[in-house]
Amino acid sequence: MSAGALDRQWRERADAVIPGGMYGHQSTRLLPDSYPQFFSRAKGARLWDADGRPLLDFMCAYGPNLMGYGDEEIDSAFVDQLRRGDTLTGPTPLMVELAERFVRLVGHADWAMFCKNGGDATQMALMVARAHTRRKTIIIARGAYHGANPWCQTRTAGVTPGDKAYQILCDYNDVSSLEAAAEQAGDDLAAIFAAPLKHDAFVDQALPDPAYAQKARDICDRTGALLVVDDVRAGLRVARDCSWATVGVSPDLSSWGKCFANGHPISALLGSDKARKAASAIYATGSFWFQAAPMAAALATLNRVETSTYLEDMMSLGEHLRSGLAERAEAHGLGIRQSGPVTMPLVLFEDDPDLRLGFAWCSQMLSRGIYLHPWHNMFLCAAMTETDISSALDAADQSFRAVKQDPRSTEVNSKLSFLLA
Amino acid sequence: MSAGALDRQWRERADAVIPGGMYGHQSTRLLPDSYPQFFSRAKGARLWDADGRPLLDFMCAYGPNLMGYGDEEIDSAFVDQLRRGDTLTGPTPLMVELAERFVRLVGHADWAMFCKNGGDATQMALMVARAHTRRKTIIIARGAYHGANPWCQTRTAGVTPGDKAYQILCDYNDVSSLEAAAEQAGDDLAAIFAAPLKHDAFVDQALPDPAYAQKARDICDRTGALLVVDDVRAGLRVARDCSWATVGVSPDLSSWGKCFANGHPISALLGSDKARKAASAIYATGSFWFQAAPMAAALATLNRVETSTYLEDMMSLGEHLRSGLAERAEAHGLGIRQSGPVTMPLVLFEDDPDLRLGFAWCSQMLSRGIYLHPWHNMFLCAAMTETDISSALDAADQSFRAVKQDPRSTEVNSKLSFLLA
Repeated sequence: MSAGALDRQWRERADAVIPGGMYGHQSTRLLPDSYPQFFSRAKGARLWDADGRPLLDFMCAYGPNLMGYGDEEIDSAFVDQLRRGDTLTGPTPLMVELAERFVRLVGHADWAMFCKNGGDATQMALMVARAHTRRKTIIIARGAYHGANPWCQTRTAGVTPGDKAYQILCDYNDVSSLEAAAEQAGDDLAAIFAAPLKHDAFVDQALPDPAYAQKARDICDRTGALLVVDDVRAGLRVARDCSWATVGVSPDLSSWGKCFANGHPISALLGSDKARKAASAIYATGSFWFQAAPMAAALATLNRVETSTYLEDMMSLGEHLRSGLAERAEAHGLGIRQSGPVTMPLVLFEDDPDLRLGFAWCSQMLSRGIYLHPWHNMFLCAAMTETDISSALDAADQSFRAVKQDPRSTEVNSKLSFLLA
Repeated sequence: MSAGALDRQWRERADAVIPGGMYGHQSTRLLPDSYPQFFSRAKGARLWDADGRPLLDFMCAYGPNLMGYGDEEIDSAFVDQLRRGDTLTGPTPLMVELAERFVRLVGHADWAMFCKNGGDATQMALMVARAHTRRKTIIIARGAYHGANPWCQTRTAGVTPGDKAYQILCDYNDVSSLEAAAEQAGDDLAAIFAAPLKHDAFVDQALPDPAYAQKARDICDRTGALLVVDDVRAGLRVARDCSWATVGVSPDLSSWGKCFANGHPISALLGSDKARKAASAIYATGSFWFQAAPMAAALATLNRVETSTYLEDMMSLGEHLRSGLAERAEAHGLGIRQSGPVTMPLVLFEDDPDLRLGFAWCSQMLSRGIYLHPWHNMFLCAAMTETDISSALDAADQSFRAVKQDPRSTEVNSKLSFLLA
């Protein structure tokens, strides 16, 4: 099975004018062949591919879709502001209101700076920490994703040693590895970067060990380094606060993005008073950073965050999905591992090093109108319903059965054969 | 004179929750005290400050406003697409159509990659050049702005030596300085970065010397390095093509941003076939890079670019403004220097090293409803009319007269006194 005819036509045209036909995290190069590359529209929890096929979307735009695609209230706030003014010669008062609102929501934060990419926020965190400490070295967990800027790349194309200078790697949730990294940094430690949970691609997710989080805080307190929690991906799907509030640890800086304006383009760096002076010393800016319409959308989204049960609702749906998948997989004699917060599920099969089973199962799910990801954490949104989860579970039941007869489930997965190395 | 009462109130609130009260290129910290920091709305060529005062805006959002704020046709294209879908789990076919359209418009380009910040596009250019050549060193003109990423910063806060490694500076339009830089790079030259014109802050602009542009091309052809023209700021205000088409030189890569979706957030890297393979090898992405609605707006904007006389109209307005300002300044016995393309004017006063005259004049203009910038190039937009220019010239006449009596025009400009050092 392959993607639809229109999708294939668009891919051919894309091959001519876009390097590789597509690039970045939304490229389907490492997904099963049946996955569409191009989409035509979306509403609520649903997405239509370029061939008009409806899909229940468990990727939610890789995070940005928190309250549902095309949420009427949020998009009305956006469009109303767009009609008044958006990208102007300076910000509107909405920037102040949004900073006030965000600071009220997030426990550790005394101030906010807005930007566009998630990577802008992590890069600003890096710069603020270096400006604050007048040191250079940072500790990052091996395999953690903090954006696509050269300093946080794992690929080598176009990246120089200088880009990744002054970095020490540790293992997430491994206290002694963190201590060793801090020792290696000596008196040059500027920051510890922490993902709010381990949400690396291809491997099981892991919630933060409170002892690890506390150790990161202790090392920063002892050395004067700043603790950064990169909440770009997990923010607002774990807590109505920085995600490390769940383990009782406050960072000095936290980066936010993706979903706090429900898909409208805005990201943020939040910080505590300790880091305020350094934050005002760095130079950071962008052509569209002070756009007013995404700020209006962010205020509407944060209002929903504060006044609705969106998080409890998503958690309940996520529990239903997780327990339902576990039951059905077991009934078919298939071993699966589910990890991460239930609002950000990842499903991997036992004994599936090149994800051939995962690919076969996700392909089966897609053919039944359910868009899953075989190796990247997925995302729930608040527009999903119990009926949606039930229909996903029905499809899962059929798909688990089909996997047992699917020839793909026994063949080497050529797209991910590098995982076998 | 100071900014309005509401603007002052918003600044006070901003001071509490935004480091320094505001940051980046739209901070008014280095502008006269009377300049408002916050704005409430915009339409066409006009902007209203937070106190509701209308201003004829010669900054055009620092570039993004090309066809007029709130252009009905472009914003309708945007909103129509927003209602269908914007930030999704993958791109829409609009991405392909926009790449095709852009490649048709820009002579040197065979492919396009879209991103969000102008700095994303210049950073991708850097990475593509390094991936293509497997070398590291780049040549940049001293003082040129290519974004706020650490590698192109002039400030030091939060920036490490590693961030700016492998860079050699030359002087814009100085052929021998460019040759010396290339010689210094030896066999490690990856790219020459060129502003399409010298549009550095605080100093006169300079159009590109064709001999300099050709020399950059020759060095790249000889060494295998890539030539990058950073058209983020000047693109579509100089030509309906890469700005160096005006001097007959084709780059390998060009970066675009700010105005090609008339203020909606999208930027781009365009390149020739030579660089295609390297472009497909780098990892570059962002949460909002594949948004469909800004692509719909970009298609509408580029359609206007191709089918209207917007550029000739802006040039005619710019000529009128330039000659009118020259006449009026001379009539008042004031020496001014006007530089750059007429669509991107900069006005500096003779014998005004700390811009005290410039500040006094711009303050006078602002009090008459004309928003100018005393040290950054300004921008015209296609929504301006001859009547607008005439009213600006009337205000200029009164303002030149007033400068002669303005005590600020004889006092040290404390905000820019660093320029005297």
